[in-house]
Order: sequence, then structure tokens, then C-alpha cells
Amino acid sequence: MTIDLRLDPAEVALLTDLYELTVSAAFFEHGFNDTASFEVAMRRMPPGRGFMVAAGIERLAEALEEYRFDAAAIGHLESLQLFKPDFLEFLSKLRFTGSIRAIPEGTIYFAGEPIVEIRAPLIEGQLIETLALNQLGFASIVATKAARCFVVAGGRRLVDFGPRRAQGADAALIAARSSYLAGFHGTANVLAGKRYGIPVFGTMSHSFVMAHERERDAFSDFVSSFPALSTLLVDTYDTVHGVENAAAVGAKFREAGVKIQGVRLDSGDLHELSRKTRRILDQAGFGDIAIVASGNLDEYRIAELTDADAPIDAFGVGAALAVSDDAPAADFTYQLVDYKDHGRLKTSAGKISTPGRKQLFRAYAPSGSFFADLIGIVDEGATTVAREFKPIPAKTVQLMETVLDKGRRIMPRPTLAAARERLMNGLTALDARYKTIRRPAEFPVRQTAALGALVISEKLRADKRQD
Amino acid sequence: MTIDLRLDPAEVALLTDLYELTVSAAFFEHGFNDTASFEVAMRRMPPGRGFMVAAGIERLAEALEEYRFDAAAIGHLESLQLFKPDFLEFLSKLRFTGSIRAIPEGTIYFAGEPIVEIRAPLIEGQLIETLALNQLGFASIVATKAARCFVVAGGRRLVDFGPRRAQGADAALIAARSSYLAGFHGTANVLAGKRYGIPVFGTMSHSFVMAHERERDAFSDFVSSFPALSTLLVDTYDTVHGVENAAAVGAKFREAGVKIQGVRLDSGDLHELSRKTRRILDQAGFGDIAIVASGNLDEYRIAELTDADAPIDAFGVGAALAVSDDAPAADFTYQLVDYKDHGRLKTSAGKISTPGRKQLFRAYAPSGSFFADLIGIVDEGATTVAREFKPIPAKTVQLMETVLDKGRRIMPRPTLAAARERLMNGLTALDARYKTIRRPAEFPVRQTAALGALVISEKLRADKRQD
Repeated sequence: MTIDLRLDPAEVALLTDLYELTVSAAFFEHGFNDTASFEVAMRRMPPGRGFMVAAGIERLAEALEEYRFDAAAIGHLESLQLFKPDFLEFLSKLRFTGSIRAIPEGTIYFAGEPIVEIRAPLIEGQLIETLALNQLGFASIVATKAARCFVVAGGRRLVDFGPRRAQGADAALIAARSSYLAGFHGTANVLAGKRYGIPVFGTMSHSFVMAHERERDAFSDFVSSFPALSTLLVDTYDTVHGVENAAAVGAKFREAGVKIQGVRLDSGDLHELSRKTRRILDQAGFGDIAIVASGNLDEYRIAELTDADAPIDAFGVGAALAVSDDAPAADFTYQLVDYKDHGRLKTSAGKISTPGRKQLFRAYAPSGSFFADLIGIVDEGATTVAREFKPIPAKTVQLMETVLDKGRRIMPRPTLAAARERLMNGLTALDARYKTIRRPAEFPVRQTAALGALVISEKLRADKRQD
Repeated sequence: MTIDLRLDPAEVALLTDLYELTVSAAFFEHGFNDTASFEVAMRRMPPGRGFMVAAGIERLAEALEEYRFDAAAIGHLESLQLFKPDFLEFLSKLRFTGSIRAIPEGTIYFAGEPIVEIRAPLIEGQLIETLALNQLGFASIVATKAARCFVVAGGRRLVDFGPRRAQGADAALIAARSSYLAGFHGTANVLAGKRYGIPVFGTMSHSFVMAHERERDAFSDFVSSFPALSTLLVDTYDTVHGVENAAAVGAKFREAGVKIQGVRLDSGDLHELSRKTRRILDQAGFGDIAIVASGNLDEYRIAELTDADAPIDAFGVGAALAVSDDAPAADFTYQLVDYKDHGRLKTSAGKISTPGRKQLFRAYAPSGSFFADLIGIVDEGATTVAREFKPIPAKTVQLMETVLDKGRRIMPRPTLAAARERLMNGLTALDARYKTIRRPAEFPVRQTAALGALVISEKLRADKRQD
């Protein structure tokens, strides 16, 4: 007996659209299982986004290393009475034996660019489509949202307060991981702390204050239990009065040599209240008590508060981060770009895809900033491609790297800290006009001449596929 | 070795904000663990919503029945060096022994109403806050989004195509379950089909067409493998040409006695293309081939298409449903309303809460429709409350029912089918002006006189808690 939030490793293979299985069965029956390349990309930038942050590939890779249909999964598929015994037998033995190339977690990317390539026997590549999009899309969206908060926070600490607003259990874990990757100081999520080694933070609940007959008693009880975590929530009743009570309790503990860490504002006009709070605390000799703000914060609100120099030391960001509220879903695609070593593309209205296996080239100026990307064919050399950039770059970097080779890692799993550092360096190297949270400029992304020629020739081939 | 998407039952207890644990430890240390009542409610209606649909309580109840901190969880908490041994010992033995009352899944509700009451020893009620909000909020939001699609679909079939856009693994399961509860015909999600007994549906992928040299060969291969599931995706290249190819393949199979089920449009102007498609199919004698539409659909777009009488038989709804894109997070609260049998409330700016244990009363007219709700005190009788409605209702129903009693079910777990039927009846009984997807009227919700009096007296008590 287990519970419904649970997800067994063997159940992950069933976390898929039915058509992945029926299409795979039809491929199997008709002898289609040569090597195929599928590409994950984002069709267009979400509203207001000038850059995106890659995330999620390591969780996906881990799932693929253990990918299998166990007896219970096969039994369920059999019960649907859709699949023939030889296909179910094939599935029961199937493992992910493909190779994955990806831009590493923490890399900045833009619409249209190849983020991940899955190169595998056609059926393996097909079966994992739903899982790949489900995992990669949200991880990247929420990392991007967090990075936008980081950009405007100006060094103030940011903490993920989102678990209660996240869309289910897995989303809470992904949001904690992605936001730490994007520069957050930590998370409130204890399980994410355990899994990813992320620092965990917490303040105090309104219920703690409400369960006490007097607010001062609540503050005293909490400080005596958790002196090192004593951030007092001052807005259960009147906020200013609450700050005065916190200062009074702080004075009592100061005599005993105990220092209150901070106060937290969770409602009202955070700018005005933070100024009043700072003044009360300073006048009581508590210049070192930090002010933590929370309550309907997002990158826009954080920017307003930091632009106004509100005396806030840390922000707790909840719902807006946890669901990426102004861009909760992005248009990620998973396209067959190559089968039997021939390019493939679709030409649907507004959904045309780019054929062929690719590499992503990034041009750096002598200053260290990057100024343009070129999407090229997988085996174009960086030196050749460098000549297509204007001006000629000081350095051209190939961004896609091998993550899994024949289903297995060839390098140790990169750490979350490394991804975080990659993003910090990337943000430093990205011009401000792409980083701004409102009406950012469009980063220049083009195709190399060789890829452009391939697109034209494959388009002509595709047009004949309807005859 | 397991994978990162996995969630063990014992890990669920760690899916919590750190403060739930620190506050609980402080309660424990200072002797606070009497009976408390916490209430889940939604502070305000999300934009454009005239009604909400309750969902998620059964998944939460299942998690609470198995709630525990196992040795690994305790070991992790110990490693944080925040908690004293006696508290960790207490946690290791803790089970959820509380009682839960809730409005049943599929019930229509409105902002401010009590949805769930957790009545338990204070620490148990505190510890489960994050989990309860995480699970109840999204399940209800996505059920509401699905119900809005159902209201405008006018009997046309709706299918959840959202797993690839959902915010992680758990969200995909919740969305499938909640959308079926709200009248969807089924889901693409195979795992959700297995867990919840929901019908699963699938069409065909673009990759299936692209892997073939000719579109007609792809259609033939698929129909021969899955005649009973043969919905052909016609927009990989030119859509109209694709429909003609589908009709040609259909004619070939007709001779062999095999009937193609449908075609799917996934891009372009769905209204215009559906008309052209219907004409081509009808002229080829395929009046019985259904048209399935998908691609950026939501309740607004579905309403446009059904208002225009577009000849579409079924809609696949993806991203907008899976993340409830225009209302991805709602303002659900989890408030301490009662401790040691005394009402509790907070009075923060804009976040004032309502004290005391409650019951929700719904007034029905002789026509069978319901016209107003009253939030009352838990032990007010329906007959007494009925007199406060104007006009006097033909029937007054008490909506909150016991789900868990002392941590255990006293009734068999209700089926998803029962929740679905409850919502279907509720939608029939709800006036059109609250159901409309644009600018709905505000449903009348008030407090009973007795609750109003309690609020005033408890507010006076709260004002003294800062002295």
C-alpha cells in the first residue's frame, strides 16, 4: 500500500501520452527503428523574457538511466488491449541506450536554439518525448523566473517560499532546485534541501502567534527555542505594533546575550512598512536585525522595492516563482530532425521545424561578454563558424555537450553548484539590454550558412512527401 | 538507487516548509499541543472565475493516512542540527490522528468559503500545512479550468493533452484526474489512466509522419496497426493536402472493411480548416470520420469555435489546461481558526481571517438550482440557518462532511465517478450568469448572524493580544 503522490521508478515509463506507445508499436510493426535524432527547443520566447536558463537535463538523464517497463507496467499496457504480445515483449526488455547532447544546466539560451538532442533508436526516442518535455520545460521556465528575480535583487538574499503554491509535489522540488541554480540563497522546502543539498530557511507562521494569548509570548517562546533562526513574523495583528513587540522581546534577550536575527513583513505596503520597521529597530539599537519581506512578490515588485531603496535585506518569493505565473508554460518542442541520417522537418503553418543534427555556437567579445549565437550543423568546426559572426569573435564556444553516451554517463554528474556558477558567469557576460525584465532586446540568433542550405534542400524533399 | 522524480511515502512528510518543523518544535518545547482547527479557504476568486470546483481532498487524505517520518527522514532532520532529540523522538512516533471535514470533491464553491477543516493536535495540524496547500490548491485550480472548458464545449468531447506541458510529474497526474472529474472524456496520460481508471486517448505524432518517406504510407501503416485508434494527424505538411491523403487512405481501407476513426488538426486557423476538412471528408463519403482539434486551445478559443459552429467533434486541450495558464496559482489559505476551543484570527492588512469552526450552507430554490451560500458556525442547524436566506430555500444543504475521523476513514473512499457526477449536477444547478467564462456575476456568499457575532467578539480579543 503506497500513496498517490508517490512515483516509482518503473512508473515513470508510463508517465507518457498514449500516442507515444501506439506510434512506437506501429513503428515496431512496420520495421522502423533505425537511429533517429530528436531535438528539444523553445519555439518563441515567453512574454517579457530576454533570455532563458537551461535546467532539468540532469533529472531527465537520471530518469533515462533507470528507464524501464516493469511487469506491472507491461501488465497494465496489456490490459488496455491495444498492443500485440511481441511489442509488449520488446518493451519489457527495452532500456534507454541512446545518447544525449545538451547545453549544460545554467547555460543561457534563446528561442529557436537546440537545447537537448536525443539520438537513439527511433522507438526509444519516441517513447521518452512526453517525459522529456514535462521535465525540461518547467525546470527551465522556473529557473528563468528565478534568474529574473536575481537580476533585480541587487545582491539582496532571495529564498524560495513556493512549496505551498507549486503545482504538486514534483513541481515544488523542481522549483527549489531551479531557483537555487538561478542564484537564490536557499529554499523553505526541506525535501529539496535533502535531495539537492540546498540551504533551507524558515521564519515563523502566523499560527504560532495566534496560538499564544499574547504576541510577545509567542516571540519569546520562538527565540528561546530557535535563537539562530529567530526571524519574527510581525504582521499577525498590527504590523508596527508587532515590530515594537519584537524590539521589546529583543531587548529582553539582549540582556541574556541572545540576538534576534530578523523580522518578517508579509502584508501591507512593504516599502512604507520596511522604512518604519527599520526606524523602530534602529532606534532600539537593533541595526543588525534584518528585514525579510514576503507576500505576492515577483521580479517586478522586487525591482520596485530595490529601486526605491526599501531597507529590505531578503525576499521570500512564493507563488509567482513556484508557478512562473506570467509564463507558466512555454512552447517547447520535441522534433524528429534526423532519421536514418537524413534530415526531417515539418512544415505546418506557424510550426515549421529545422532539420538536421545541430551545434550551438556562441560568440564572445574581447570584453568577455557574448554578443550573438549561430545555430549550425553538428560537425561544423568552431573555427569555420567563427568567420560568420560579425565582428569576428575573440572566442567561439560550442555549447552542446554529451550528457549520456549509449545510455550511460561518460563524465561524473555535474553538481548543482557548477550549474549555478555557470549561470552567474553567463549573467555577467550578458548585456544589460537582454537582461532587463521589461521589454528586453532580442538577442541575435541566426543559422550558419551551411544549416541554411540544408533547410532549403530538406524543405524541397519534404514538399514531395505528400505526393 | 532510485530516481529523482520518485517520491517515497516517507518522503512526503519532508515535503514541507522548514518553518512548519521549527514552529512545531517550539510548540513542543513550550507545551502547546492541544486540539486545534485549521481551515483551508480561497481568499479571492482568480481572475474571470465565477465558480470554483473542489478537488484534491482524496489524494491528501490518502497521504495523511500514511503520514510518518521514517528513520531516513529523522536522520536528515538530525543532520540539520536544529532540533532537539526529544522532538525528533516525538516526530518519529507521530502519525496523523486528526479529523478532516471537507466539501466533497466535485462540489462547486466560492471565495471565502471553508473548503477543508483539519482538526487535530496543534502540531499535527501545523506540520501538514504545506502539503495540504500544495495538493489542494492545484487540484482545484485545474478542475476549475477544465470545468470552464466543459461548460463551453457544448457536449463535444474534451481530452487532456497536457502531460508534456504540466509542471512536473505530479502535476500531470493531478491535471488528468481533475479534468476527468470536471467532465473531460479522458486523458492522454497513461499513468493517470492506470491510477484513476480514466479512459486514455491518443492520436498520432508528427514524427510518425516525418519518419516515413510519404505521408500516405504513414497513414496506411498507422491504420493497419491501430484501426480502432486511427485518428490521423494531417498537419505535418500542408493540412488540406493531408486531409486529401487521409481520405485516399481511408478509401483504400474502406474496401478492406476498415473504418478510419478521425483526423486531427493541430495548427493553423482551426475554424476555417475544420470546414474545409469536413467538406473534403463528406465529399469522399466519410461523414462519419470525426474531426479532432488541438493546438493552443483553452476555454476562450473553444467557445469561439463552438459559437461559430465549427464542425469539430473533439478538442485536445494541452498547456492552458495543464497549468491553468490564466490563473496558475490561487490564493488558498490555511488558517488556525480555533485552539483549545477558542476562536483565533489574524488581522493583518488585507489578510484578515475568520475565527471558529464552520459549516457551509447552500440554499436551493424549488427549481433545483442553488442561489446563495451562508458560512455558519459548525453546530448551527440547517433549519435555523435556512431562515436567514432570502427567499426561504426549498432545501438547505450542509456541505462539509467528515473525510477522516481520528486519522482513519469512516466511509469507503468515494470514487472519482461520484465526484464527477456531483459536479455535473452542480453545474446544472448553477445559474448561467455564474458559469459564463467572461465577467461572471458574483455568487452571493454571506456569514450567518451567529458567525458574524463571533467575528466581532474574537476581533476584540485579538486586539488585546498585542498588549
